[in-house]
Amino acid sequence: MPPGEFALIDRWFRPLDGRAGQGRPDVLLGIGDDAALLQPPAGQWLVAALDTLVEGRHFPPGSEPRSIGHRALAVNLSDLAAMGATPAWALLGLTLPSTTDEAWLQAFAEGLGTLAARHGVALVGGDTTGGPLTLSVQVLGFVPPGMALRRDAGQPGDLVCVSGQPGEAALGLRLLQHDATLSGAGTAAQRQQLRRRFEHPEPRLALGLALRGVASACIDVSDGLAADAAKLARASGCGLELHTEALPLSAAMCGVAGVAAAREAALGGGDDYELCFTLPPSREPELATLAARAGCALTVIGQLTADPALRLLEQGKPRSAPWQGFDHFAAERSE
Amino acid sequence: MPPGEFALIDRWFRPLDGRAGQGRPDVLLGIGDDAALLQPPAGQWLVAALDTLVEGRHFPPGSEPRSIGHRALAVNLSDLAAMGATPAWALLGLTLPSTTDEAWLQAFAEGLGTLAARHGVALVGGDTTGGPLTLSVQVLGFVPPGMALRRDAGQPGDLVCVSGQPGEAALGLRLLQHDATLSGAGTAAQRQQLRRRFEHPEPRLALGLALRGVASACIDVSDGLAADAAKLARASGCGLELHTEALPLSAAMCGVAGVAAAREAALGGGDDYELCFTLPPSREPELATLAARAGCALTVIGQLTADPALRLLEQGKPRSAPWQGFDHFAAERSE
Repeated sequence: MPPGEFALIDRWFRPLDGRAGQGRPDVLLGIGDDAALLQPPAGQWLVAALDTLVEGRHFPPGSEPRSIGHRALAVNLSDLAAMGATPAWALLGLTLPSTTDEAWLQAFAEGLGTLAARHGVALVGGDTTGGPLTLSVQVLGFVPPGMALRRDAGQPGDLVCVSGQPGEAALGLRLLQHDATLSGAGTAAQRQQLRRRFEHPEPRLALGLALRGVASACIDVSDGLAADAAKLARASGCGLELHTEALPLSAAMCGVAGVAAAREAALGGGDDYELCFTLPPSREPELATLAARAGCALTVIGQLTADPALRLLEQGKPRSAPWQGFDHFAAERSE
Repeated sequence: MPPGEFALIDRWFRPLDGRAGQGRPDVLLGIGDDAALLQPPAGQWLVAALDTLVEGRHFPPGSEPRSIGHRALAVNLSDLAAMGATPAWALLGLTLPSTTDEAWLQAFAEGLGTLAARHGVALVGGDTTGGPLTLSVQVLGFVPPGMALRRDAGQPGDLVCVSGQPGEAALGLRLLQHDATLSGAGTAAQRQQLRRRFEHPEPRLALGLALRGVASACIDVSDGLAADAAKLARASGCGLELHTEALPLSAAMCGVAGVAAAREAALGGGDDYELCFTLPPSREPELATLAARAGCALTVIGQLTADPALRLLEQGKPRSAPWQGFDHFAAERSE
């Protein structure tokens, strides 16, 4: 049994609130009052997102607490990355079972705090209560007026690109769940790489900044690449054509799952938090420079079309694709 | 079974996002992208709070969905009221059991939306997922620089005041739970008044604004009047002396529970979301004007002391008090 609500907040979360080493003088009043007082930078737009993680739904029961803390913040920072925003502050709504212990809290706070410190984010408030393990994180960041990346501004003919190797995290989750179809395949290092992609996804904040003024539209890949690319296309009033051969598959994905299953994971897996974005064909030559600035691979996987259809082509032939994506409401992925 | 995540958000929550009649031109991009884009007013401080409600912990299982929607926003607006802030925007993290139906969602959205519209709040984003019924709302508001009410700036000798009649909501909850000790007491109208105070608490936003530049410190009463007054005193480096005879008891409280139980509810009950604040004795004559502006009763119940002790006096004699308050982490109040 952990200590009471207030002792818990004091011990584990107050050190992350920006006054004690996180170096944010814009936190005028952090954890400890009814609300936080914050000083927005003059002339910037505020960018706000909130994502919830539920045990057994977004991560397997008994997951490493360090990974849970990391992911609770990472999925939110990924939303800011997809808008081209610079993150600043976070609030945490933490619902904990009564069986939670101090070691769990310490690892959770370290996972969240390490990622927060890496991106200069202060944890300025929130709420801790008892109940089934659920985490709602709200993040706030900034973007210069008119510079935000949106999902609704793509144009027919724009190239559809994706960062990293989406699908790694979905395979990593299957490894964590001891999926028998993957048993023993791939090297230990490959298996570790995939598990790590699920447990410690890296929000693509540097890429989001680099895409300001370059990408015509952007979305983060949380529900599956095909589904999120389709959302971007629909929001932009376009159709979509993707090519399976163009999907960026890592050696780890192919080694552990084989090429065919790796492709399906790349299309339908949803926990990588990569960015899917569009840009005019004339800017394709800039991709190598953007990839270098962002520190990740960038791959053209298709293009937006004036025809509203969603098409996936494999060796030039249309095939089905998981356009609907993962519905966190209807399904239970991680149980 | 409700519709999928995105259909649900579109149908019930997008109409509340500030572009469709809530009249907030500062919502540049609301529900539907990875994050909301918001335009903070120039030169104001941002005020941010997040509170979580869990079924069976913060409200009884099977509660009216309209009340749940109202309370999820009200408890957060109360935090802004306690800072003297003007609310602007909210985000909602909604975790729903798979048994939720359309009628439940409609009533929930109406409860939340009606309160939001009354205070000009736009629901600009959030997340909907499946799991045990849990609600995390995050609210954002504004306060002119240096004008925020804090809990740490009370001075010895300052009068301790409270709005409304705290304790009504705690008795209302007991009625909703069919507490046998209250069976049949009071009039039907009194019982209805108490239940309503639990189900539809009114955040004291007008009072918070009226207290800017007047109150020396302020806190909202969420964990019990004695406990929250003690938190204010401790944060201000003071002790506290309260008088049971001064507690404002309503006819409904006394009619339903009797004077003695009404006093205990006033001291320890925690769901009224009234404001407890301090002001220099020289400003006591302003209380009547403040009460008129805020539209609620204001009562002096004690004062801050240089002596760090917490004291409750009944007919001049010290007695025990629930200074610890309700610990949402350790206890299970509403199950």
